[in-house]
Amino acid sequence: MKKVSPLAPKEGFPTLPVIDGAEFASAQAGVRYKGRADVMMVRLCPGTRIAGVFTRSSTRAAPVLDCQAKIGGQTSEAAAILVNSGNANAFTGKSGIDAVERVTASVAETLDLPASRVFTSSTGVIGEVLPHDRITAKLEELCGSLDATGIAGAAQAIMTTDTYPKGASATVETANGPISIAGIAKGSGMIAPDMATMLVYIFTDADIDQETLQAMLAELTDRTFNRITVDSDTSTSDTLLLAATATGPKPDDMAAFRAALQGVMLDLAHQVVRDGEGATKFVEVRVTGATTEEDAEKVARSIANSPLVKTAIAGEDPNWGRIVMAVGKSGAAADRDRLSIRFGQILVAENGWVSPSYSEAEAAAYMKGQDLVIHTDLGLGDQEATVWTCDLTHDYIAINADYRS
Amino acid sequence: MKKVSPLAPKEGFPTLPVIDGAEFASAQAGVRYKGRADVMMVRLCPGTRIAGVFTRSSTRAAPVLDCQAKIGGQTSEAAAILVNSGNANAFTGKSGIDAVERVTASVAETLDLPASRVFTSSTGVIGEVLPHDRITAKLEELCGSLDATGIAGAAQAIMTTDTYPKGASATVETANGPISIAGIAKGSGMIAPDMATMLVYIFTDADIDQETLQAMLAELTDRTFNRITVDSDTSTSDTLLLAATATGPKPDDMAAFRAALQGVMLDLAHQVVRDGEGATKFVEVRVTGATTEEDAEKVARSIANSPLVKTAIAGEDPNWGRIVMAVGKSGAAADRDRLSIRFGQILVAENGWVSPSYSEAEAAAYMKGQDLVIHTDLGLGDQEATVWTCDLTHDYIAINADYRS
Repeated sequence: MKKVSPLAPKEGFPTLPVIDGAEFASAQAGVRYKGRADVMMVRLCPGTRIAGVFTRSSTRAAPVLDCQAKIGGQTSEAAAILVNSGNANAFTGKSGIDAVERVTASVAETLDLPASRVFTSSTGVIGEVLPHDRITAKLEELCGSLDATGIAGAAQAIMTTDTYPKGASATVETANGPISIAGIAKGSGMIAPDMATMLVYIFTDADIDQETLQAMLAELTDRTFNRITVDSDTSTSDTLLLAATATGPKPDDMAAFRAALQGVMLDLAHQVVRDGEGATKFVEVRVTGATTEEDAEKVARSIANSPLVKTAIAGEDPNWGRIVMAVGKSGAAADRDRLSIRFGQILVAENGWVSPSYSEAEAAAYMKGQDLVIHTDLGLGDQEATVWTCDLTHDYIAINADYRS
Repeated sequence: MKKVSPLAPKEGFPTLPVIDGAEFASAQAGVRYKGRADVMMVRLCPGTRIAGVFTRSSTRAAPVLDCQAKIGGQTSEAAAILVNSGNANAFTGKSGIDAVERVTASVAETLDLPASRVFTSSTGVIGEVLPHDRITAKLEELCGSLDATGIAGAAQAIMTTDTYPKGASATVETANGPISIAGIAKGSGMIAPDMATMLVYIFTDADIDQETLQAMLAELTDRTFNRITVDSDTSTSDTLLLAATATGPKPDDMAAFRAALQGVMLDLAHQVVRDGEGATKFVEVRVTGATTEEDAEKVARSIANSPLVKTAIAGEDPNWGRIVMAVGKSGAAADRDRLSIRFGQILVAENGWVSPSYSEAEAAAYMKGQDLVIHTDLGLGDQEATVWTCDLTHDYIAINADYRS
């Protein structure tokens, strides 16, 4: 039994709203794991629009390439999502493409819908042939157990090195009734190609056209999932799908829908960081006072990815010198003498030097907390960005140095 | 007593040639450390040309800014280099500039040369005022013990978290007699602002003008010191000075001199990696078959900086999937199906898949070695680049998480 991350939500997996037009099933296919569900299926009603965002890796896995090609296609027929854990079907050459074709064709036949409407993801070890027959052998069973309330089981089935399943939801009121949003995610590195790819599936009954949905998803991803980092590594399989079944109303206030969707995406993104390999601290890295948002993001990312900053946090050491270093190496416009740094509300450094009011003992006490905010103001402009990360601990080394050996 | 890195040169500190026109001294000033030398002085004869390369950090320390301003100035007078360890005089605001002015003025007075010819570096903790009077109190003693053979003591005095002093040399034959090159370095992270800045000082009696020297140093730095990485972090104090006393001959074969200088620089650069914090493996990351050298370097750096690759190496795990991941995230042009990966001579992957000849047992045996080569061929062009790094171990976390607390 894996030890659950100390940063996991205390309340456990949330109760997610039923999304009319979406049904879920999960099963034990034994792709790699024994004694646990490792495949999940989602059936989506005719008319469902599907938007998607994928890893930018140039060594993308076969299922990712297949999904990308299908985004923006026709929406009149039903659709399906099929995901397996335990094997990523990545860097598997021609056999990888074959496996995707076999699985999508079988799902299409079982659910009586076109293969162009079947989206698949695979997550787990890479470089090993996907035993696709173990998955196709379970399709009838999955089909028979599809259920509108099955989303929690689906969240369990897609886990790999995750220590807890991840879910989030929101409701948006409209003049024609409420719109629901429910999402699940997996991931616990950012992201190990072996076992910790990030996969996210979000469902809503909102009636929104595919182009609008796609544009909104891409934009919000840049401010949520693209603003988290565990170890600066990028998976070959990262996949985010958003399915709108259109069984509910059109949003009459698009800004409200957008905010609700962003809330669900940020919640799931934070849960991924909170399950970061070996993490003991959740850290918000906030950068303000930049000339451009790009510069603010560069500095935030430089701080959040610095091994020296992350090990200092693990050691509960208010080592602000390392923040100065990370600002300096970021490549963004910065002026040492206009910089200010805060740990939570504690002013640490300003005017190119440690603050006269700074107390190391006070800062050290702050660093003992589990949720930390590191705020750097560059003092140059009014643009800002926030990145979320975790600390770098002995357990990260243990998990990743000792995993296969 | 610090444990010496397992990757340290077996033969210990080398015997370095005397450079006519350069004299060295070191002393115990007690800046921070007790019972060891922590300042070193070099006196350089009139006519010495000095080239320099410095950190690109936007939060550079006061001595770095002072050195940069002095490069390319007059060469008729004698010159001096003064370095202290234990305090970096970085992020110390106005007091930092004052300290540099006090030290350079005192050195100039003691050695009877202009302050514009005094170059200083400081390495150690940041954000603390440099106790410059402890340094200036030792200048007479340093001046009195200047000796052409004192370079080994100087290499000791500049150490911080280093586990061994670093030196390298070369001799270049010319029709008018030999030219000697001798260099020393310190550094054991790449680079921690607290205690592991990289400082390098190279001396030669060659008669070369300052502009030529400066251009050669900058170009060679890009292929030596800028091609090593321990943890992807960059110091606020990195300094490399090359002093040519011109007491020896002009090189009659500039390419031969250039090659000899590059050899000394690469040797020192490798010694810095071999003293990487917590390092147990020295890794050459070679990338060939790229469309451009920039792409080759991007891929090599992406592999060498990946925490997942570095932890796998620490675990002696031939986890080639992580190499594929690092290629994919690098941003360089790459085609999954044309990629080949070798651990030493062992062909691991090719044609988008694991090689048919690959034996995991053979690769695992290779990974138990101390000096490893990871060779990725992108199969796209004829450009290449090599980056040197070390593994990421529990000791790196221990050193950096527990250092100040």
